[in-house]
Amino acid sequence: RADFQLRPVPSGFAPQEREYQQALLLVAALAGLGLGLSLIFIAVYLIRFCCCRPPGPPGAKSPPPGGGCVTWSCIAALLVGCAGIGIGFYGNSETSDGVSQLSSALLHANHTLSAIDHLVLETVERLGEAVRAELTTLEEVLGQRTELVAAARGARRQAEAVAQQLQELAFWRGVPLSPLQVAEDVSFVEEYRWLAYVLLLLLELLVCLFTLLGLAKQSKWLVIVMTVMSLLVLILSWGSMGLEAATAVGLSDFCSSPDTYILNLTQEETGLSSDILNYYFLCNQAVSDPFQQRLTLSQRALASIHSQLQGLEREAVPQFPSAQKPLLSLEETLNVTEGNFHQLVALLHCRGLHKDYGAALRGLCEDALEGLLFLLLFSLLSAGAVATALCSLPRAWALFPPRNPSASCSGSHLSEPLLHARLEPVPPPRSFPGCRRRPH
Amino acid sequence: RADFQLRPVPSGFAPQEREYQQALLLVAALAGLGLGLSLIFIAVYLIRFCCCRPPGPPGAKSPPPGGGCVTWSCIAALLVGCAGIGIGFYGNSETSDGVSQLSSALLHANHTLSAIDHLVLETVERLGEAVRAELTTLEEVLGQRTELVAAARGARRQAEAVAQQLQELAFWRGVPLSPLQVAEDVSFVEEYRWLAYVLLLLLELLVCLFTLLGLAKQSKWLVIVMTVMSLLVLILSWGSMGLEAATAVGLSDFCSSPDTYILNLTQEETGLSSDILNYYFLCNQAVSDPFQQRLTLSQRALASIHSQLQGLEREAVPQFPSAQKPLLSLEETLNVTEGNFHQLVALLHCRGLHKDYGAALRGLCEDALEGLLFLLLFSLLSAGAVATALCSLPRAWALFPPRNPSASCSGSHLSEPLLHARLEPVPPPRSFPGCRRRPH
Repeated sequence: RADFQLRPVPSGFAPQEREYQQALLLVAALAGLGLGLSLIFIAVYLIRFCCCRPPGPPGAKSPPPGGGCVTWSCIAALLVGCAGIGIGFYGNSETSDGVSQLSSALLHANHTLSAIDHLVLETVERLGEAVRAELTTLEEVLGQRTELVAAARGARRQAEAVAQQLQELAFWRGVPLSPLQVAEDVSFVEEYRWLAYVLLLLLELLVCLFTLLGLAKQSKWLVIVMTVMSLLVLILSWGSMGLEAATAVGLSDFCSSPDTYILNLTQEETGLSSDILNYYFLCNQAVSDPFQQRLTLSQRALASIHSQLQGLEREAVPQFPSAQKPLLSLEETLNVTEGNFHQLVALLHCRGLHKDYGAALRGLCEDALEGLLFLLLFSLLSAGAVATALCSLPRAWALFPPRNPSASCSGSHLSEPLLHARLEPVPPPRSFPGCRRRPH
Repeated sequence: RADFQLRPVPSGFAPQEREYQQALLLVAALAGLGLGLSLIFIAVYLIRFCCCRPPGPPGAKSPPPGGGCVTWSCIAALLVGCAGIGIGFYGNSETSDGVSQLSSALLHANHTLSAIDHLVLETVERLGEAVRAELTTLEEVLGQRTELVAAARGARRQAEAVAQQLQELAFWRGVPLSPLQVAEDVSFVEEYRWLAYVLLLLLELLVCLFTLLGLAKQSKWLVIVMTVMSLLVLILSWGSMGLEAATAVGLSDFCSSPDTYILNLTQEETGLSSDILNYYFLCNQAVSDPFQQRLTLSQRALASIHSQLQGLEREAVPQFPSAQKPLLSLEETLNVTEGNFHQLVALLHCRGLHKDYGAALRGLCEDALEGLLFLLLFSLLSAGAVATALCSLPRAWALFPPRNPSASCSGSHLSEPLLHARLEPVPPPRSFPGCRRRPH
């Protein structure tokens, strides 16, 4: 139930709140108002032009003066419309760039998050395998010397502790929000938005060019068809302007302070603790690394396993040569685990994900917003140009000769209305009111 | 000494080699050839038009037919030129985007490299300070028990080893190549390139608009001035086309396999070992981390210092309460060092720098190259449009009425050449050769 009460709404971005939605709807509705006003203006102008034209001098069946002015103003309006179309193409491409930057940043973040998951899973499995196979073999081999078995048991405990710590680092496992899904949704919507704008721009370009052609050929039916099409373009322009204005207002509200909104939204969607989210979304010196403790513990445990294995190698191998193989294999596993651990530290550090977040925001709030403003300018220019053309076109075709199907250059199908007729050396039989006052 | 021998040159990017430079110069020279040909064509066309026009029917002082066609073709050429200007603005902005992406990636890489330097320096200083102050105090306090002093000495040795290892991780220290400097140079050149193109585009836009205005007002002097300006624009267009073509050829040669070239160049400029450069420029599973060994050793040494400090705390503090303060301070230092170590691992990992490298390449080889191709298209369109306009403009102003200063709408200074004259209800006194064969 919409109840527009025209109260000021706080400018914070809150798309769930009814008041905010209504404020955006109001912005969009302003474009409808603009459409109505311009239609009324055009109608009044044309009715006044049709019905209230000043009576010509008695006996003179001359057309009203300023016909050329009408055509030239129509051409100027169409040129402005063409410039607007150029701006529209630019804005559409900028918006598309920004949104693709957003979705590629989301894809990259998804890649990082799934790499963390994958790396943790692989490392934990490898450690578990080592604990099950090599350490068990080692304990069996060393069965006779209890202090060596105790060292092997210590290594096993440490390895299990590391696996436990690592498993808790995969913070995104089981989180219902997938950046991949968001990126795909965004790309899907953007694809259709882009296509719709390209079609609108092409339609407008065709209308402009065919109107120019109609004026050049003085083809009445083409100009009439294009007048009707211009009406359609006028409605579409105002409609797109409304959508753009509402989106631009919403987007700039969002972009004025995105961190808080996104932080809250992500916390709601993922249920992650706020220190992890703060770490990634803010990523400055003031926010401490929530994984620091676990990483340090794992690192110490890995180093301790290493020193225990070294001790075992020194003590046990001379006595039990069969212990060498599992020990070497364990050291190999340990080296790989340490390599993975460094990769994990690099992946978990906030730099990478925060850079993706920054890139996504820049795409949305710089490129996409800029493109949206250009699209708004396009809609504005094209609405103005089409309204002007709608005012002049009927006046222009009212001035066309009634039926002159052969008015075309031989072979080229372009007429010669511009200069040829003017330069006829026919002395004008009478002086016209208006432009040509002095026959040369 | 240039010696063009027109041999095929290998398409690899090798800007230092004389043959490659000459190949690029040849590409640029093709544009000069195009300019010469188009100037000759325009001159021949205009001379033929002036001198060899077919004699009119005897007694008829009618202007040559197709005057309107000439004007409309001129307008069409100017419209194509305007479309080209739109494309040029788009291409200029794309190129600028790409280059700014390149320079921001360079800045980010510079930030990472200097952060590594800074972090290493800070950590090494902090460790050295701890070794000098707290460990010395500790050894003095524990002077009576030699096994505890030996443990403290061990911790000191390990800390010094860590500092040594860390110092060697700052691989960019003392390297003469600064990405910051490169980024500043690139931005500087790009700023002037952008400005030059904007000025060229504005000049061409003004020429287009004033030519249209001149045609609309049938102002001979404006059209003559604009014809001269069009000649200037034609020369500028072909010149910029030559530069763009050479740059585009060079850039696409570079972009077809940038890795090898950049790797060699960086190795020459920096003198860094090839495994470090391979690690950062390739950054895949096949290239092993050249810092892995050092990082693992530092990590083990840190863990070992930690266990030695723990042992000292257990053993010494009950006996020497004054040892507690330096021990706590040492543990604090150790914690900070471990935090810095994790940051260092994240910074040294190839992901960050390789992403910057990828972004720089994308900026240069996607956006900038695309923008350059659009600029090339602009130059091509504008050269064609201006050449067409140069062919039609003199014909158009030859058709203007000789002196008709009052040919303007009352008040609006726009003439009415388009429709008004055609619609005069004067029956044409004779049939003209050319367009209007059938009087209505």
